[in-house]
Amino acid sequence: MKLVVVGASGTIGQAVVKKLLSRRHDVIKVGHKGGDFQVDLASTDSIRRLYEQIGPVDAVVCTAGLAKFGSLEDLTDSDYLLGLTNKVMGQVNLVRIGLNHIKHKGSFTLTSGVLSREPMKGGSSVSMVNGAIEAFVGAAALEIPHGIRINVVSPVFVKEAMEAMGMDSSSGMSAEKVANAYMESVEGKRNGEILDVRSFA
Amino acid sequence: MKLVVVGASGTIGQAVVKKLLSRRHDVIKVGHKGGDFQVDLASTDSIRRLYEQIGPVDAVVCTAGLAKFGSLEDLTDSDYLLGLTNKVMGQVNLVRIGLNHIKHKGSFTLTSGVLSREPMKGGSSVSMVNGAIEAFVGAAALEIPHGIRINVVSPVFVKEAMEAMGMDSSSGMSAEKVANAYMESVEGKRNGEILDVRSFA
Repeated sequence: MKLVVVGASGTIGQAVVKKLLSRRHDVIKVGHKGGDFQVDLASTDSIRRLYEQIGPVDAVVCTAGLAKFGSLEDLTDSDYLLGLTNKVMGQVNLVRIGLNHIKHKGSFTLTSGVLSREPMKGGSSVSMVNGAIEAFVGAAALEIPHGIRINVVSPVFVKEAMEAMGMDSSSGMSAEKVANAYMESVEGKRNGEILDVRSFA
Repeated sequence: MKLVVVGASGTIGQAVVKKLLSRRHDVIKVGHKGGDFQVDLASTDSIRRLYEQIGPVDAVVCTAGLAKFGSLEDLTDSDYLLGLTNKVMGQVNLVRIGLNHIKHKGSFTLTSGVLSREPMKGGSSVSMVNGAIEAFVGAAALEIPHGIRINVVSPVFVKEAMEAMGMDSSSGMSAEKVANAYMESVEGKRNGEILDVRSFA
């Protein structure tokens, strides 16, 4: 399969790319700055150009998208809008624009996160963003034509990222295990589902 | 209790106001154009002015917020953004700004809708919007101080609105029954919950 991974240089993205390559897929790595091609998820023009550059693909995987942690009191209007324009609309637009570039029976795999259903203090914006993406995927799956599937992977906190931030990583999951859920979405038959990474670790 | 109902002239809003008045509450009616006071949910300045005008309240109920139906193919960027800036951020900002104006042990009651969990064709934007609000409420409830509660009511399609649009309303619920869930949120003890109107009809 010819796949594009948006967010390929991130902690989860790297693990997903590695697993896809080990399964002999042809992977196009996309990043905000690095990778084979670049994209700004907040810009529909940038997403349009990306698809024109890479040509038709069998699968689109997105492990990217910005959203901000912070208390209700500290988060600003623009912090909330960042999540909505970047992580939500960036992924929504990868699907909407990608429908003109993905092959029949292809698949989209987006990323949300555990906080949509298991909230924590400081997560009001991140929860909101993840809830938006999951509900979008459930609805979009009802309309997407040509046997094209769409799922969203909901990761828990990733060990490597927690360690990089100096946090206790004992409750986290390794990126390599998180990547299993992405494989299931790409290679399996699921459609319109939220894949909790804990079910595939 | 002194309450403010944003969206008081809408189908659900009218029913909520009627039920609140029958329980001898003091109701301030707010609309985009009508009502005792006006607000533009898409504008934080407008929300700030509203709270300055009405003074401290015991409860904020919002039955307003715009989001657009349409197929994945037909919806435009600005259609998706309308839902995110109006129905999502409008309600999020009623809470964020309202925290400076609501009394201790007060409550916020927002509105989502059944499509977050039970999607239908043409609902990708509305589902996304409703999912965002529900997840926000779950997270915000963990942080809101002073015994102030927050819930979100998830209505099904309302009979009166379906009839006004020339639809078969047999699957709908009357606005009067939908209003029961709002009463439960305002007068009960729930916090951080999604109140499905079918459980209170």
